[in-house]
Amino acid sequence: MKGILVIADGLGGRPTDMDGRTCLEAARTPHLDELTDRGAVGLVDPIGPGIRPGSDTAHLSLLGYNPHELYTGRGVFECLGIGLDVRPGDICFRANFATVEASKDGLRLVDRRAGRIESGQEELAATLGTMRLKTPGVEIQFRASTEHRGALLLRGKDLSPHVSETDPHEVGATMRTAGPTADGAAAKRTAAAVNELTRQSYELLKDLPLNRERAAAGKLPANILLVRGAADCPHIPSIPSIYGVRGAVIAGGALYRGVALACGLDSIDVPGATGGLDTDLRAKAEATLAALATYDLVFVHIKGTDNAAHDQNAAAKTAFIERIDAEFIAPLVERIDWKSTHLAFTGDHTTSIDYGDHTADPVPVLFVGPNVRRDDVTSFNEHTAARGGLLRFSGQVLPMLMSLANRCPKFGS
Amino acid sequence: MKGILVIADGLGGRPTDMDGRTCLEAARTPHLDELTDRGAVGLVDPIGPGIRPGSDTAHLSLLGYNPHELYTGRGVFECLGIGLDVRPGDICFRANFATVEASKDGLRLVDRRAGRIESGQEELAATLGTMRLKTPGVEIQFRASTEHRGALLLRGKDLSPHVSETDPHEVGATMRTAGPTADGAAAKRTAAAVNELTRQSYELLKDLPLNRERAAAGKLPANILLVRGAADCPHIPSIPSIYGVRGAVIAGGALYRGVALACGLDSIDVPGATGGLDTDLRAKAEATLAALATYDLVFVHIKGTDNAAHDQNAAAKTAFIERIDAEFIAPLVERIDWKSTHLAFTGDHTTSIDYGDHTADPVPVLFVGPNVRRDDVTSFNEHTAARGGLLRFSGQVLPMLMSLANRCPKFGS
Repeated sequence: MKGILVIADGLGGRPTDMDGRTCLEAARTPHLDELTDRGAVGLVDPIGPGIRPGSDTAHLSLLGYNPHELYTGRGVFECLGIGLDVRPGDICFRANFATVEASKDGLRLVDRRAGRIESGQEELAATLGTMRLKTPGVEIQFRASTEHRGALLLRGKDLSPHVSETDPHEVGATMRTAGPTADGAAAKRTAAAVNELTRQSYELLKDLPLNRERAAAGKLPANILLVRGAADCPHIPSIPSIYGVRGAVIAGGALYRGVALACGLDSIDVPGATGGLDTDLRAKAEATLAALATYDLVFVHIKGTDNAAHDQNAAAKTAFIERIDAEFIAPLVERIDWKSTHLAFTGDHTTSIDYGDHTADPVPVLFVGPNVRRDDVTSFNEHTAARGGLLRFSGQVLPMLMSLANRCPKFGS
Repeated sequence: MKGILVIADGLGGRPTDMDGRTCLEAARTPHLDELTDRGAVGLVDPIGPGIRPGSDTAHLSLLGYNPHELYTGRGVFECLGIGLDVRPGDICFRANFATVEASKDGLRLVDRRAGRIESGQEELAATLGTMRLKTPGVEIQFRASTEHRGALLLRGKDLSPHVSETDPHEVGATMRTAGPTADGAAAKRTAAAVNELTRQSYELLKDLPLNRERAAAGKLPANILLVRGAADCPHIPSIPSIYGVRGAVIAGGALYRGVALACGLDSIDVPGATGGLDTDLRAKAEATLAALATYDLVFVHIKGTDNAAHDQNAAAKTAFIERIDAEFIAPLVERIDWKSTHLAFTGDHTTSIDYGDHTADPVPVLFVGPNVRRDDVTSFNEHTAARGGLLRFSGQVLPMLMSLANRCPKFGS
């Protein structure tokens, strides 16, 4: 028995989305409705009722982990998702290319995103790759991702995630000095390393030809690295070891790939899977169908729904849901061997159009496959899901899918 | 107000049970349906959504305990259920009569169940009763149960459950030596005791006339004791102390009796209650009705539903559910004083016919009695329960029953 878990990011909506209806209610989704007719639906609180989830914590919870116990910070997943080799003891950070200018009080923040830098990040990363810290025995790895974003990792003995940020957040303010936020030598040592790498990043980047060209073109220079969200690597028991399955992730976004890698899944690269509204959903469907030949579990993450909702664009979210139905779900409906496959479809949280951010509202969830207790619901949205046979539960969508596929370990005997 | 809790083991089913219907859907259950009409139903996740329960952990959870905190292993409940006097500090084991043969590499496993030995177990147990360990101050108790099964207990100062198994599991493999799986003298001492009792069991049993007779009859000798699942006794606050009730259990299976005894209930022996499909359900109903004269709470466990499902026999499970309805529920419906009694009926997990084992699917649950908020559902199965007034919840069936009977302590003030 195979299992497919599809998470459409920020899928859930509110009646304020579209004049009394959610985007999912407004969208035409005949293939999701067909699966709903054959399966069972309900509402899932990604972490728990009244808990407003982040994407990382929600994913951990839907994958069957307790984020209250395991979550250390987003940096770990960003580092993993971007391809850094994270090991126990490493300290991971999210990083931004930013713009500062020298002032008598120190380096003053001009733009946290270096004018949303759109090219040259590889060159900047290569330059930063020459950083060598004086803090003895501390190694550094950095990789750029999209626009101004990147991820950074410190490796060495006795490092700690308990350090404060250098990012002053406010434009015009001077850069902060990282300090220890816990007792002990490790936090002091790590704060020293962060301050050193921040200074070095400025020294290495400020006079780079690329930044002179940006300045000449009226663009902001990417002349410093801001790091935040220090996190050490949590011990996450792997999905293959828990369920005895081979599993893979298909995700355009680094964060989601990172979460899945941290849980022991292999990553399948799909050309055209961008993690945006322009993603190639047909290619993701083909990759899913192909992956089922070698994997027991395929986890597919689709990001565009959330992007549109953060942009407060109801029409874009609705259109993207319709594209998911037509370009991703339709090929699966047609070509999956439904006698031996279970599929779960849900979101990692609600993202409200009006609010433009995640909310604690529960999310519709659909299970279909031979072992599912079919209910009477025949269309898939927030309203109908509340009348479904799965009723309401918290997280745990992957363990439920694995139980339906007869892959779940027993607790007790 | 009195309370009756009935758990039909492995009651829940999947649509694969019977061509689109579960056994409970297929079974004719007019008396359960009558109680449903008068009461309220819902779905219970015995431990939690997506958690595939063992019978022991599920019972703890339904009885209102947190098995993640309290569960140490099945051995404790087997020892208690079989009539051993388990005390704090004792180490309990599940035990098997098995067949080994001497080889140049040591004792080689021939059959883990001694050919599912069907007679003579009392004599074997009496022989094992003469074991005296050299490990100073360690006392040993053993009792046989059904077929090849038994339970064993070590008592003494400084014993530990952290020992590895002697059972090689694989036929043809040589017996393993138990070793400590934790630091400290207690684990070493316990491992030494386990190795010593394993050797002694072989020396005592191998030349027993009973085993020579078995060999002469072409049967496998029961010439060694395999022990597994070492567990120390958890501290379980007793049901009488929590709710101020006198409570009793009626259960044919030793495990379930053991769980109830661990929770402070008295055990009522019912002749003909076998823990199998051949159990005398009418006798259990009579015993329940009689117990209500002296007890505030009667917990009845019925095992046959699970046996049939493990045997992947849908017809047998369906027929047994119909027998529960006609022979156990019917007399209660007729003769209980429903003005002063609440009854809860559920299963400890779903056992799928197709899979032949427990699954994480939730289980229908029914409450009836004067304080129950009646809903509109009039028949009792997985499908109708999803539309019931109790919705979906996790564990805690006994505390809910005790609250309906106005016996529940307040948390806070």
